[in-house]
Amino acid sequence: MTTHTFDLVIRNAHAATASDTFKCDIGIQDGRIAQLGLGIASGSKEIDAQGAWVTPGGIDGHCHLDEPIPPPLRMADNFETGTRSAACGGTTTIIPFAVQRKGQSLREAVSNYHDRAQDLACIDYGFHMIITDPSEQVLQELPGLIDEGYTSFKMYMTYEDMKLNDHQILDLLDIARTKNAMAMVHAENADCIEWLTRRLEHQERISPRYHAHSRPMLVEREATHRAISLSELAGAPIMIVHVSGKEAMDQIRWARNQGITIYAETCPQYLFLTEQDLGCDDRYEGARCVCSPPPRDKNNQQFVWQGLSDGLFTIFSSDHAPFSYDSPEGKKPGGKQVPFRRIPNGIPGLETRLALLFSYGVLDGRLSINRFVELTSTNPAKAYGLHPRKGTIAIGADADLVIWSEDPQTIQNINLHHAVDYTPYEGIGLRAAPGLTLSRGQIVYEHGTFKGAVGQGQFLRRTAPTLQPIHSPGSENQ
Amino acid sequence: MTTHTFDLVIRNAHAATASDTFKCDIGIQDGRIAQLGLGIASGSKEIDAQGAWVTPGGIDGHCHLDEPIPPPLRMADNFETGTRSAACGGTTTIIPFAVQRKGQSLREAVSNYHDRAQDLACIDYGFHMIITDPSEQVLQELPGLIDEGYTSFKMYMTYEDMKLNDHQILDLLDIARTKNAMAMVHAENADCIEWLTRRLEHQERISPRYHAHSRPMLVEREATHRAISLSELAGAPIMIVHVSGKEAMDQIRWARNQGITIYAETCPQYLFLTEQDLGCDDRYEGARCVCSPPPRDKNNQQFVWQGLSDGLFTIFSSDHAPFSYDSPEGKKPGGKQVPFRRIPNGIPGLETRLALLFSYGVLDGRLSINRFVELTSTNPAKAYGLHPRKGTIAIGADADLVIWSEDPQTIQNINLHHAVDYTPYEGIGLRAAPGLTLSRGQIVYEHGTFKGAVGQGQFLRRTAPTLQPIHSPGSENQ
Amino acid sequence: MTTHTFDLVIRNAHAATASDTFKCDIGIQDGRIAQLGLGIASGSKEIDAQGAWVTPGGIDGHCHLDEPIPPPLRMADNFETGTRSAACGGTTTIIPFAVQRKGQSLREAVSNYHDRAQDLACIDYGFHMIITDPSEQVLQELPGLIDEGYTSFKMYMTYEDMKLNDHQILDLLDIARTKNAMAMVHAENADCIEWLTRRLEHQERISPRYHAHSRPMLVEREATHRAISLSELAGAPIMIVHVSGKEAMDQIRWARNQGITIYAETCPQYLFLTEQDLGCDDRYEGARCVCSPPPRDKNNQQFVWQGLSDGLFTIFSSDHAPFSYDSPEGKKPGGKQVPFRRIPNGIPGLETRLALLFSYGVLDGRLSINRFVELTSTNPAKAYGLHPRKGTIAIGADADLVIWSEDPQTIQNINLHHAVDYTPYEGIGLRAAPGLTLSRGQIVYEHGTFKGAVGQGQFLRRTAPTLQPIHSPGSENQ
Amino acid sequence: MTTHTFDLVIRNAHAATASDTFKCDIGIQDGRIAQLGLGIASGSKEIDAQGAWVTPGGIDGHCHLDEPIPPPLRMADNFETGTRSAACGGTTTIIPFAVQRKGQSLREAVSNYHDRAQDLACIDYGFHMIITDPSEQVLQELPGLIDEGYTSFKMYMTYEDMKLNDHQILDLLDIARTKNAMAMVHAENADCIEWLTRRLEHQERISPRYHAHSRPMLVEREATHRAISLSELAGAPIMIVHVSGKEAMDQIRWARNQGITIYAETCPQYLFLTEQDLGCDDRYEGARCVCSPPPRDKNNQQFVWQGLSDGLFTIFSSDHAPFSYDSPEGKKPGGKQVPFRRIPNGIPGLETRLALLFSYGVLDGRLSINRFVELTSTNPAKAYGLHPRKGTIAIGADADLVIWSEDPQTIQNINLHHAVDYTPYEGIGLRAAPGLTLSRGQIVYEHGTFKGAVGQGQFLRRTAPTLQPIHSPGSENQ
Repeated sequence: MTTHTFDLVIRNAHAATASDTFKCDIGIQDGRIAQLGLGIASGSKEIDAQGAWVTPGGIDGHCHLDEPIPPPLRMADNFETGTRSAACGGTTTIIPFAVQRKGQSLREAVSNYHDRAQDLACIDYGFHMIITDPSEQVLQELPGLIDEGYTSFKMYMTYEDMKLNDHQILDLLDIARTKNAMAMVHAENADCIEWLTRRLEHQERISPRYHAHSRPMLVEREATHRAISLSELAGAPIMIVHVSGKEAMDQIRWARNQGITIYAETCPQYLFLTEQDLGCDDRYEGARCVCSPPPRDKNNQQFVWQGLSDGLFTIFSSDHAPFSYDSPEGKKPGGKQVPFRRIPNGIPGLETRLALLFSYGVLDGRLSINRFVELTSTNPAKAYGLHPRKGTIAIGADADLVIWSEDPQTIQNINLHHAVDYTPYEGIGLRAAPGLTLSRGQIVYEHGTFKGAVGQGQFLRRTAPTLQPIHSPGSENQ
Repeated sequence: MTTHTFDLVIRNAHAATASDTFKCDIGIQDGRIAQLGLGIASGSKEIDAQGAWVTPGGIDGHCHLDEPIPPPLRMADNFETGTRSAACGGTTTIIPFAVQRKGQSLREAVSNYHDRAQDLACIDYGFHMIITDPSEQVLQELPGLIDEGYTSFKMYMTYEDMKLNDHQILDLLDIARTKNAMAMVHAENADCIEWLTRRLEHQERISPRYHAHSRPMLVEREATHRAISLSELAGAPIMIVHVSGKEAMDQIRWARNQGITIYAETCPQYLFLTEQDLGCDDRYEGARCVCSPPPRDKNNQQFVWQGLSDGLFTIFSSDHAPFSYDSPEGKKPGGKQVPFRRIPNGIPGLETRLALLFSYGVLDGRLSINRFVELTSTNPAKAYGLHPRKGTIAIGADADLVIWSEDPQTIQNINLHHAVDYTPYEGIGLRAAPGLTLSRGQIVYEHGTFKGAVGQGQFLRRTAPTLQPIHSPGSENQ
Repeated sequence: MTTHTFDLVIRNAHAATASDTFKCDIGIQDGRIAQLGLGIASGSKEIDAQGAWVTPGGIDGHCHLDEPIPPPLRMADNFETGTRSAACGGTTTIIPFAVQRKGQSLREAVSNYHDRAQDLACIDYGFHMIITDPSEQVLQELPGLIDEGYTSFKMYMTYEDMKLNDHQILDLLDIARTKNAMAMVHAENADCIEWLTRRLEHQERISPRYHAHSRPMLVEREATHRAISLSELAGAPIMIVHVSGKEAMDQIRWARNQGITIYAETCPQYLFLTEQDLGCDDRYEGARCVCSPPPRDKNNQQFVWQGLSDGLFTIFSSDHAPFSYDSPEGKKPGGKQVPFRRIPNGIPGLETRLALLFSYGVLDGRLSINRFVELTSTNPAKAYGLHPRKGTIAIGADADLVIWSEDPQTIQNINLHHAVDYTPYEGIGLRAAPGLTLSRGQIVYEHGTFKGAVGQGQFLRRTAPTLQPIHSPGSENQ
Repeated sequence: MTTHTFDLVIRNAHAATASDTFKCDIGIQDGRIAQLGLGIASGSKEIDAQGAWVTPGGIDGHCHLDEPIPPPLRMADNFETGTRSAACGGTTTIIPFAVQRKGQSLREAVSNYHDRAQDLACIDYGFHMIITDPSEQVLQELPGLIDEGYTSFKMYMTYEDMKLNDHQILDLLDIARTKNAMAMVHAENADCIEWLTRRLEHQERISPRYHAHSRPMLVEREATHRAISLSELAGAPIMIVHVSGKEAMDQIRWARNQGITIYAETCPQYLFLTEQDLGCDDRYEGARCVCSPPPRDKNNQQFVWQGLSDGLFTIFSSDHAPFSYDSPEGKKPGGKQVPFRRIPNGIPGLETRLALLFSYGVLDGRLSINRFVELTSTNPAKAYGLHPRKGTIAIGADADLVIWSEDPQTIQNINLHHAVDYTPYEGIGLRAAPGLTLSRGQIVYEHGTFKGAVGQGQFLRRTAPTLQPIHSPGSENQ
């Protein structure tokens, strides 16, 4: 009887980290990467990667699953379908949002969200909190929750039922600073949007396309500048999420040039969709692409690509927000075509995020494979306190891995594993896609088929961010 | 009789790459990293790192050794003393300059430089070329030399005997573009410097301090903008070397924001020296710190730190230019105090580069250890076609490694291993320094003592750069 | 018996307009400039200017007089003392503010302010409105008031009892656009100020100096960017009032470079005072200089001078806000030293504005005399719909003139004509000051003595702005 | 027998200066404006303007006439035809260039140019010098010539036979600074142009359209940045002539934001022509529009309009360079179609400059009438030391005036008065044009007909510039 050194060995990997590429075998034991080398000892199970790219499993730092929202709306994906879809797209860790309802304690929001996740999640997960009501009590319970591993929270500057005013944001940033938590900001100016929306409604411009007219670039640019200013005043770095184009990017560049540390996220919709996808006047189908900020134009897509390449963007997430289209619980709330104001915002994207960026970024020459790994895995891990356990191929890290398959294919919703009835990327060709996904050494996806087990995902207590800050301390150096 | 699996094993390393950190043992065989893991098999020799940081050996992409220059001047370091000093400072690869004399063929310049290097080098080395006379014949021989592994060359915009005009630079950039070579530019405006120098001489302002007055920041800023423009016109990325402060940095940021790929280097002198170190009117000792561009002021030091942190700078090099001070062959040419115009430009720095950046960057909190590795090793390797053989800790890479010692110490020239009679950093305290250096698995330095062997260094044929470009291709993405 | 052609002739004037200077006699008839020439016909009265500078009378586009405010506070100057002081400082037109109380109609606010002005004003005046409660009714009455000559209004982004939210500002800007009125904005972020103020109060930092700490530059910069964005969204140019330093100026420059028309005002306090003038911890006297935005530092003073010179600033006003210091109705409300939050904001400056700018701007070589006239008279006239009746020396214009006296003197409150018990500029030397002021051809000030008559000032119905817009229409040109 | 008070009275003028507009009669005596008023005394001659706009006569600060150039080339316009054409276009002062040949003294160049001008000029004129050979002797004679009223000179950064190197430019700027002269710079990078030209020639791309390819925007941007740097280093403001588009404008804005005083000129070709006007491959007619910098595109036209509106541009000139098209002395040198390198650069424009800017600027709403006067007359007068004698409507100024006629018409070369056989603006419609031009009180043009007299133009000794500088002195203000 033979004894094997490892539980699993991946042979002939062309491994990539955020800085390096190397050919090696990967020895996995107890769900972790135990050894890297050429010709290492045998595993109980062996997989031959045949020289294919092997990257760290994706970390999706921005996705929405099974959030409690007012009926008739309902998110199509719960933790089971969402994490299944993620795994099939090469993502091995997600950090969805535990949303605080007005008046609710954060702890209750978090506890409730644990209930929704724990028996269903197929891959590992942490929680960001969304704080909608920073009462005195909430400000007091927040530090404890950060200590317990909920080391990030999101604040909205828009949406009537979610938005915080500048004073509230400052209160929360002050805690982020003292507790070294990561504060995420959705930056759009609520008043401007409401003013424009009323004007459009007055003009009877209510079809989905006018969603984009109600949130032009300047509405995002203004809020971005304001968020930067609040961050500067409080002395707490922020992550500006789903940045959609040049004007907001220019504000971030400006901030960094002033020595203000600002992190930035973008998403596939700002590379692959435009305002045109919201349709024309008499077509409701554009509701499928209603999300906020809305997609911009081709020029802005190019600027976003540049920002991914040159380091402006820190991370690349999906902002998966799963509302079905042809459903009374989704884009046709109550089963009817509604004014754009009432269309639930958000599009699905958990499963397509990595393949799109790999195909159009790495294989089309816009991004090095290292930068791809950095944007989709290493930096999310560092930003949200999961590194070095997650986000890399290194000794001691969790064996969350993707083996890539370079077979061309076309995105079709019928092949995806989420519970949403469409994908905004239908018909887009891919030059590569994940062929096999490992979560802590277990195969959870293989060539088109989900292989994981419901409930196997573990909750991740997270640490403080470990991203390189953008500016140096002011102290004298000698 | 026991057989060992590896030639050498480093146990209990706290390894750092440009993106990751991990604890592991490192198995080395035939000079290469063969295995990473915990509790790996034994080595013929073993070293216990006891949890200390282990980083890839430094790569110094900018240093001058034993260049043929007109008497009485002479560089104090040849390949023996220079590489010895480098090894003792944790640097395992250098890329000094094969200088073309006017009228000389590049091949002859390279051949001559091989003669100077091959029996003396203690660590591995490549050659940049310095092109001073891009005649038609030189333009024709250059592509062949790039093919042979001399994949980078430097152009001067200043120094009477070296400078190229814009037309010549464009001719060379055109070749850099077609052959995918890395073009380096020394950016200072020669005419402005000459005009200022004559004016200072007319005013009898000739002591070393006036060297700085003859090359103010704007002289560098103008040439930086011009170099960027030439790069943009030719469609060839450039590396702007020894960037000294804010105004030039601003031009580089501007260029990148325009989508122009520009790489940038800075050096220790712009972090640790200021114009004040050039002394006052009646003191000649400031000649020790005469280099070009000159050190600036404390504010600019802070901007340079910021640029190291935020990604403006691609690499961190020494610009080691070894002229002794109290020597007729050096800063007192002919043995006399001379006008600043005649003081040879340059300062030594090969051995102190890494320890200074590690102490004041990493340990003082300005830079992550990953960014340190990236600036001093990974990015130079990528910029100059040595990656992944050099510049990382990964399977298959050369076992060029540094084990760090965090014993506080003070820089004293008496402890350095170069042949220069001073260091400009005399008396600066260090919180850490390399404790042991490995070159292809051989110990070349250990706790104060050079342990390498003269002539063991190998010439490195280099490939094209593999750095992430800064802007995306303009092509449509679907 | 001789008949004279003119009511008044000023002989030997060295006249200056915003673009020209010329030597001439000025013939005045019926309060207007009837003739310019050399050796013109005689006047019933003649004044020999003896070659002194003669400029258009100053127009103060930003001053507060006799506003209804909650007791115990009370503005020290009413229309009599305020316009008297203005006339003695060379100002011949003021545009103070008719403030809307919450719930009040604009018409009532305007009507009430007419009552306060009409029998007391010594020089001509118009009214800006301050809109604090833009109810539906107010939005409906506003266009009519603009048609009646109240062609400008101010909006506050700070002060609890005055501030408008972004939606309200957009509603008002929309009317400004359709009616071609000038919208003025006080740009400071209320939430940030409140957050900082509470923090300071919590730290028991309540002396006057902390007023500046509660409103740092970034608080103004953020609101400036936001105001610009609202202006851009609504398509209505705005005047950003009392810009205090570089960061806000940079936003204005940025906006103009984007093609957004933004006008800007600054005031003497940003040239002649600094944060230091708010005093130190145990001194209450700094309350004298409490105004918003607070004075900044010496560097910012230089930037403001540059902006006056280079065209960044459109107009130069006093922001005269007359609260006595040693008075229970003023800076010691209730007669006591109070926390900075309760010190009434504002400083006097109507009478010193022109002499300060003439002395330190024109005579010290920072500004041409043309630019002085433009900033203090012509541009306010154009911005607020008074040109060409006011703001120049030209045929048909009102004979509002200042003859300058270049006798050195020192500012002393004892010599000023307002009812405030101090001037923040006490002790500052002047190289010149108005020697004689004419309002519609009547002498209202002569060498230290007020010569005007109470009630002689006329209300000015104003037209739309006639300033050169900053960006061209986008239409094709052929 | 009646005696008249004035030689000439213009009744019912709607006069415009750079800052004001007013209705008045204008009394003219001895060629100067003697009186302004309504209903002034009678003149020996009277003209009823009937309420039409009356502006100061145009000053063309950039035009070429009868320069000595190598055969077979010859400028089509001498001082007679050139000034005749100018007068018919409403221009009453020109400042053409006295060109120094290599080796020639400046005095000889100036003297020679006086010979060419003095009996032929129909309107007043000064001379700029073009310095092509700043030898030691020339540097010594220059200050004297400035003292004699030649207070401006131009330097070329391109053209093989004209260009100066940076050192020479610094030498000349140093004199401009000490003597307070205006230095003009033609900013294009000679080396880049030569490099591109050779490449195009190598590709047999030699038709006129490739002229534009040989001088792309970046070639101008680079030289603009360099010129700014030289100006900053020497401490002498410069006028950057014929700025063609956004990238160069951005450099000028940047410079001013740094506190560097830079003046800028643009020309009609950058508003009304594009690169398309240089034609396509097999058409030589595009040679008509060959000038340097070349016209850009529609977007850049809009940026230039914005710069005229917002103050970026100081002056608006023609850069009239009169080479006939269908002539062996002009665009077909030797009578043949030649490679673009040999086509003489320059286009005619003296007569069309004002009407184009008035029609498309003032009447189309892009520019106020004040800004029109400033750009075309007042600022050229101030920049080149002619104000207040020239450039305004004010007491004591020369009676150089234009009465505008708002009859629509179309530009046709057959109606122009120059000696060039084409106009690049053929067929462009005008909404207004000069109806009558007065030079020192004499009618020189009236409704289509030249009425002046050859040789009546006077040479103008000029003073130092009197433009408002852009940045304030750094001195403390109290």
